Amino acid sequence: MLNALRAIVGDKGLVTDPAEMEPYLVDWRQRRRGSTLAVVQPTSTAEVSAVVALCAAQEQPIFPVGGNTGLCFGAVPESNRPGKPGIMLSLRRMNRIRGIDRASGIATVDAGVVLGDLHNAAAEAGRQFPLHLGSEGSAQIGGLISTNAGGTGVVRYGPMRDLVAGLEVVLADGRVLSDLTALRKDNTGYMLRHLFIGAEGSLGVITGAALRLHPQTPNTAHAWVAAADPADAVALLAALQDRAGSYIQAFELVSASQFALVRKHAERARFPFAEIPAWSVLIELGSEDATTGLRDILEEVLGAALEQGELLDAVIATSEQQAAEFWHIRHSVSEANKKEGASITHDVAVRSSEVAPFIKAADEVAAKLFPDAYSEVVCHLGDGNVHYILMFTHAFWAALPDPEGFALEVERAIHDVAAHFGGTFSAEHGVGRKLTEELERLADPLRYELMIKVKALFDPQNLMNPGVLLAPEHS
Amino acid sequence: MLNALRAIVGDKGLVTDPAEMEPYLVDWRQRRRGSTLAVVQPTSTAEVSAVVALCAAQEQPIFPVGGNTGLCFGAVPESNRPGKPGIMLSLRRMNRIRGIDRASGIATVDAGVVLGDLHNAAAEAGRQFPLHLGSEGSAQIGGLISTNAGGTGVVRYGPMRDLVAGLEVVLADGRVLSDLTALRKDNTGYMLRHLFIGAEGSLGVITGAALRLHPQTPNTAHAWVAAADPADAVALLAALQDRAGSYIQAFELVSASQFALVRKHAERARFPFAEIPAWSVLIELGSEDATTGLRDILEEVLGAALEQGELLDAVIATSEQQAAEFWHIRHSVSEANKKEGASITHDVAVRSSEVAPFIKAADEVAAKLFPDAYSEVVCHLGDGNVHYILMFTHAFWAALPDPEGFALEVERAIHDVAAHFGGTFSAEHGVGRKLTEELERLADPLRYELMIKVKALFDPQNLMNPGVLLAPEHS
Repeated sequence: MLNALRAIVGDKGLVTDPAEMEPYLVDWRQRRRGSTLAVVQPTSTAEVSAVVALCAAQEQPIFPVGGNTGLCFGAVPESNRPGKPGIMLSLRRMNRIRGIDRASGIATVDAGVVLGDLHNAAAEAGRQFPLHLGSEGSAQIGGLISTNAGGTGVVRYGPMRDLVAGLEVVLADGRVLSDLTALRKDNTGYMLRHLFIGAEGSLGVITGAALRLHPQTPNTAHAWVAAADPADAVALLAALQDRAGSYIQAFELVSASQFALVRKHAERARFPFAEIPAWSVLIELGSEDATTGLRDILEEVLGAALEQGELLDAVIATSEQQAAEFWHIRHSVSEANKKEGASITHDVAVRSSEVAPFIKAADEVAAKLFPDAYSEVVCHLGDGNVHYILMFTHAFWAALPDPEGFALEVERAIHDVAAHFGGTFSAEHGVGRKLTEELERLADPLRYELMIKVKALFDPQNLMNPGVLLAPEHS
Repeated sequence: MLNALRAIVGDKGLVTDPAEMEPYLVDWRQRRRGSTLAVVQPTSTAEVSAVVALCAAQEQPIFPVGGNTGLCFGAVPESNRPGKPGIMLSLRRMNRIRGIDRASGIATVDAGVVLGDLHNAAAEAGRQFPLHLGSEGSAQIGGLISTNAGGTGVVRYGPMRDLVAGLEVVLADGRVLSDLTALRKDNTGYMLRHLFIGAEGSLGVITGAALRLHPQTPNTAHAWVAAADPADAVALLAALQDRAGSYIQAFELVSASQFALVRKHAERARFPFAEIPAWSVLIELGSEDATTGLRDILEEVLGAALEQGELLDAVIATSEQQAAEFWHIRHSVSEANKKEGASITHDVAVRSSEVAPFIKAADEVAAKLFPDAYSEVVCHLGDGNVHYILMFTHAFWAALPDPEGFALEVERAIHDVAAHFGGTFSAEHGVGRKLTEELERLADPLRYELMIKVKALFDPQNLMNPGVLLAPEHS
């Protein structure tokens, strides 16, 4: 097997040295470890095709890995096939921006391109690629598509799915399905592309993509708003959508408990409010047009809400520096939580209109079942994605006889609340190996049955990232 | 069969009278006629489910019909199964707006809702549903989703696919796949929804949908621009995208030959130019914000292009009335062509950046193969959709021994040119029964193979709109 792989990708493309393989075998938060025969690093779609065909012939599982920045262990290699450890497939050497077509607003790239590099290439062409997340210095396009990555900009630009105009995919038998013409209109049959987006590598290997570029929006305005209740934030969102909906680039809701932790732990943070309000909202508006009065729009909409008693306070940034300070507060959340204690973060989503009742119900469930925790909320309210966090002391956590079992119990309880409001247990982080049981438990049984059939259609040997997304007995 | 159907939908839901069935049996342009056992008109998803299950048990084909406004005969009932004429399924009595969720920007509707009624409901909620086309007074949501309808607004809002947030579908065995929670973020496995969008009823019957509403954009600005060459229009598009890309609501290119016909035939039309330029572009910008200086943006961008000699002339509308006059010219195209002669209209798309070379190449091919015709171009340049039209005299057409065969010859020649530029032969009109052979001829064979497999997975008995999209021997 190794010789056959070497014949395809060469010495440089085959990593078998344990020390060199190490960073691929463990997720970046060091929580789960796998094993594999080799990390294979092809340099072209033709090489990927040959590697996949070889694995199909040898019945060796393929574990694709992007930047290894996922949170659900989707890139940890774990074969459940005796005597077939499988290979990891990294496209890091396929990192070419194939072309940028300004008039059509399309960048065509290798799947191994790092997100930050695409940001730079788009900027050089006078455009932006509007997907932003913490790991953008490492995350690769192939992984971002396979996990349908989200972030704070989804309210305006949608998730990765909405930014993909075409894909090049190596199927489980090694054949290449190429669809990079990236037409805005094409009504010639079933849209197969969307099956691969968010499939977490379980249907094929994405080797290239045509991605939509957007105009840059150098004109921005920012506000932190204080509210008594999430419902007031939802009403504000609706009012702002009426007035300037297509300008909303972020609408981030933060609970007092979360704000307090940032104030306690974050360095160099400057806070807009003297006292922490029950709920705070960070708003960003953006336009490519410098003359649009975005601050005037904020003043008008926030002023009306203040006058009607729907808001407690509002601060509009008066400089780019202050805007950066606003974002610094929001970006300090993860670090502050890590310093404070042991937290369980949920990635649920409900409709924006259901966020307020969801939070209330989740708090009631948590108070009853987990009285040792308190809750924090960080919510992309513009798209209904609630990171509902339960914070425990380190001491409480250290005393647990079965921390993993306890975490699962907590997660299930909160996922059930989300399901009650028509929501999902995984909004933007995906399923990976972590949540396969939750998917089986919570998915509509008919949809789950169809997923199993689709998997069998595209990957009849079950060699494409087996055990990820679908539970091992189904995948 | 009829008694069993009557037991499900009642007397009112079962149309068997030939005169009442007549409008369903023929496409609206009266070009193709089918036959069927009955037109079944259920009033609920449960009734649709029971009807489909009955048909599955009886092996009767199902031919779904929306507003019957399609151009490719996708709603003409033609069974190729001996002794099984099948039924037509109309959801016109399922025409309820189920709910509008302003904060989440979602309208949930029955599939039988007429597009114009949705426009009104959205407007009453202070929003818009931004899909507009000529047949909006008849076209139904289910048909618009099944054909992934387009129109002039795609450049800003995307086609129907981009406006669907969730679907309710009755599968071929009668089971109901419901996905109307309409979450903006949901990463829990394969996105099956997109398979049904644009499937032309061949995978299941869409009975309900959750649709995205957008803010209204009452502030608009319009211009007609004169250019010497399509390439200059493409360059203008790129410049406008840089400056105000997200405001572009229409960018419509029209050839001199087409403009001349409108001037010849259209009533009450007022023209922006004294002499017809080689190429004209209708531009619409729109914003929800009244203070944004859209006319200033047009003046700036058009002024710069004029100064650099990239445009010949430009007229910016100074009133709403003049803006309406601008659109009247564009909307008079079909009528003018009908009055002039016998035309063959193509619905191809290439990337915007390839529109200029495509037109040049198509003109060369047409001049060589079809010297009796002259070409007209009406192009949604913002999304690359070119309605390339070849106009023949009525006399020429009447003298043809085999007009259908000749039309096919013309279409194939132009489709080949589009394919040469990486384009599609069907941008927004779909495949229907008209273009199944073209799909088989021009589709990537691997993609076509996968489509056949997907069809077999979802519709193993081949009862869902058989003969539409996929050629009869495959579907």
